[in-house]
Amino acid sequence: MATRDPRPWERLEALAEAGEPHALRQFLELILPGEAARVIARLTPHAQSRLFGALDPIDAARLVSELPRSQAAELIEHMGAELGAGVVAALPSDKRVDLLDALAEATREELISLLPPAEAREARELAEFGANTAGGLMIKEFLSYGQDVQVREVIDDLKRNAARYASYEVQYLYVVSAIGRLVGVVAVRRLLFASPETALSSIMQPSPLAVPVNAALDLLRALFERHRFIAVPVLDANHRMLGVVRRSAVEAATAERSERDYLKVQGIVGGEELRTLPWVVRARRRMSWLTVNIGLNILAASVIAFFQDTLSAVIALAVYLPIISDMSGCSGNQAVAVSLRELSLGLLKPVDVLRVWLKEASVGVINGAALGLLIAAVAWVWNGNPYLGLVVGAALGLNTFIAVSVGGTLPLVLKWLNIDPALASGPILTTVTDMCGFLLVLGLATLALDRLVSAAT
Amino acid sequence: MATRDPRPWERLEALAEAGEPHALRQFLELILPGEAARVIARLTPHAQSRLFGALDPIDAARLVSELPRSQAAELIEHMGAELGAGVVAALPSDKRVDLLDALAEATREELISLLPPAEAREARELAEFGANTAGGLMIKEFLSYGQDVQVREVIDDLKRNAARYASYEVQYLYVVSAIGRLVGVVAVRRLLFASPETALSSIMQPSPLAVPVNAALDLLRALFERHRFIAVPVLDANHRMLGVVRRSAVEAATAERSERDYLKVQGIVGGEELRTLPWVVRARRRMSWLTVNIGLNILAASVIAFFQDTLSAVIALAVYLPIISDMSGCSGNQAVAVSLRELSLGLLKPVDVLRVWLKEASVGVINGAALGLLIAAVAWVWNGNPYLGLVVGAALGLNTFIAVSVGGTLPLVLKWLNIDPALASGPILTTVTDMCGFLLVLGLATLALDRLVSAAT
Repeated sequence: MATRDPRPWERLEALAEAGEPHALRQFLELILPGEAARVIARLTPHAQSRLFGALDPIDAARLVSELPRSQAAELIEHMGAELGAGVVAALPSDKRVDLLDALAEATREELISLLPPAEAREARELAEFGANTAGGLMIKEFLSYGQDVQVREVIDDLKRNAARYASYEVQYLYVVSAIGRLVGVVAVRRLLFASPETALSSIMQPSPLAVPVNAALDLLRALFERHRFIAVPVLDANHRMLGVVRRSAVEAATAERSERDYLKVQGIVGGEELRTLPWVVRARRRMSWLTVNIGLNILAASVIAFFQDTLSAVIALAVYLPIISDMSGCSGNQAVAVSLRELSLGLLKPVDVLRVWLKEASVGVINGAALGLLIAAVAWVWNGNPYLGLVVGAALGLNTFIAVSVGGTLPLVLKWLNIDPALASGPILTTVTDMCGFLLVLGLATLALDRLVSAAT
Repeated sequence: MATRDPRPWERLEALAEAGEPHALRQFLELILPGEAARVIARLTPHAQSRLFGALDPIDAARLVSELPRSQAAELIEHMGAELGAGVVAALPSDKRVDLLDALAEATREELISLLPPAEAREARELAEFGANTAGGLMIKEFLSYGQDVQVREVIDDLKRNAARYASYEVQYLYVVSAIGRLVGVVAVRRLLFASPETALSSIMQPSPLAVPVNAALDLLRALFERHRFIAVPVLDANHRMLGVVRRSAVEAATAERSERDYLKVQGIVGGEELRTLPWVVRARRRMSWLTVNIGLNILAASVIAFFQDTLSAVIALAVYLPIISDMSGCSGNQAVAVSLRELSLGLLKPVDVLRVWLKEASVGVINGAALGLLIAAVAWVWNGNPYLGLVVGAALGLNTFIAVSVGGTLPLVLKWLNIDPALASGPILTTVTDMCGFLLVLGLATLALDRLVSAAT
């Protein structure tokens, strides 16, 4: 699978050592989009610093924009504050805030203090908004004009500042009052059809849709689903315009959030993990979740210790304990997954908990019966003991019902309690289903102990 | 938590019964964006049909666009072919294809046959491309002109067809040769600065970036990361222009894919599940995955049956079997999650399997040692048997190392074998780690049986 040619990261490393910005830029443009992240990840930290030292800030910023956020943050942490500040200053304002947000606090403060004053002030302002709110997602580069400005003046301004406006959101012009309140919007292409002397106020759409600076990601997502805009203006409490949120920023933040939720469900918390991170950090982050989990596991398994006599008498039961634990976890996690998804799509709210439970109950009865019959048949045939089959089958059937009931409703309850359901649902669910499952198998076995033992001998 | 006012779905149901399109439209505009999906989901199938029968097709299409794809597909299935075709015809072409793709085959064919001929042909064409390729994501509504067309003529055309072009991607004009080959692109706002007699060929950017119709989602995503375009043109094998893929379509498809992957990891397969689906369908879909899983579970637990004598002699071991099974599954799934994510971000390829294993090994040694020591201490204190602690601790430590090794590398191997890693990694991983875990605990216990038993008595 390996090729004989020098690998791209080896060539890049050589070019970075030579320190020729022009050759570097050419090489980076030849790497396929999507390859850049993988190639950069292969470089040693030293080579990465050399590379970003050799690139001019614009090229460096472009390259950083292509990387996943956590990888970009790690790079910036390593490249030293001065170099880092140069790169960060060259990013558009939304990417800049996003990246600063992913840095360690100390690095962030140091970088911001090294930014040009205007950028530093803006970064501090934007950092105050939550990452997944209109304020955190907006860019501050937008075009705004007074109501009396004429079309000709706007076109002249666009022509004169074409280079600077290249990084702006330029599909719309925003019309603002003397104190900066948003009063209208004009699609740029409408300028094509207007005579040069027209005032913006007569071609603008008045009272355009806008969002408050604290609007949540879900609202923004729903808004862009309903309307075909490319961008929506963001207002402060006094209706002054602060920036624009672009459709693509909302879509990207949604994708990032579902990726993060997925990682959380699997027990990667406290920041996204990339394998380029030092292994101590990776081990520690994973461990924090595992430690909680092993505590819950010991709690659940302690139920088994109460029934050691039953277990000694019918040792075959030991085979079925892990099966019941695992299968109930699976059934329950399916229900959790559906609830988490319906929550994120806005189909559910915490008040719907009863409705969800009813919907899950029917699935739980069917699948509980099916799985229970299956495991009962296996136990009867394998152990030659119909009573063992009955005990194990009844336990799995009942516990499947419990598992889907808890799994379906738990995320809603956690959401209502303001606990992140993606994070907490899994561990709580499996602890409950393990305890119930062990209790059911061993409790039913204790009740039927005489029959179980006499049938076995 | 309930309000005394009639709930929105009750009002909507009443309005649908009354069948007044105007009142309905007004009501729907008042529902908050993001609420629509939840309100529609509350309606009975009958009320849903009444509602869509009462709306005009444009309003109905707008409402359908706001719903998650699987909910929209279900609605269309229920509303009858004629009504459904009217709604589908009023959707923009990318949403139309996306929705048709989510329908059952028979419904899809029937609907397509009822579409106007041009829309039907287009839908058939687009349906041939994979859903997550440039062809599947593109819209066919774009503006193209010949090279000799003058700026004035373009502006006239835009003015004349403003209503029709409202649903077009209108940030760029595409310049095509006589046989439809893409030769250049002009940003619409450049028209503002050009004199009316200029030919497009003299202001266009020649040889613009474009993608082939089969370009994959990952490539498109990387392309939009690198470049600031809002849309990229799609070409067939002869460089003829077929459509444009918009940035927002790529971001949305990425979000949808990670949601689907998350559901798959949790065992929801064979189509996205919403609780509005009939419970028989939901139970069956979930069951197919559970059946595979219970088979694998029985296989893994059969290891325990081989060691019944050891287990009878040291019944306390039974408590630790589910703990080791569950903890190893957790550690392994953390590694799976990181690999799946790095695969989807393009940071990993199957050839990187050795590098990933080395990175996981160090985490595995650390966390294995930590978890092993922890459980050893618990077993020693709880059961008062240092040898039991030694056996259980060594087993969990070794098995954690195995679990992260398998979990980190398995997704890459599956990807290389062209098996969906999101779907298959979990069940394979836990079967392997269960078998190894049981084998380690009970095997080590068998070796140390004399000491275990004498220490216990």
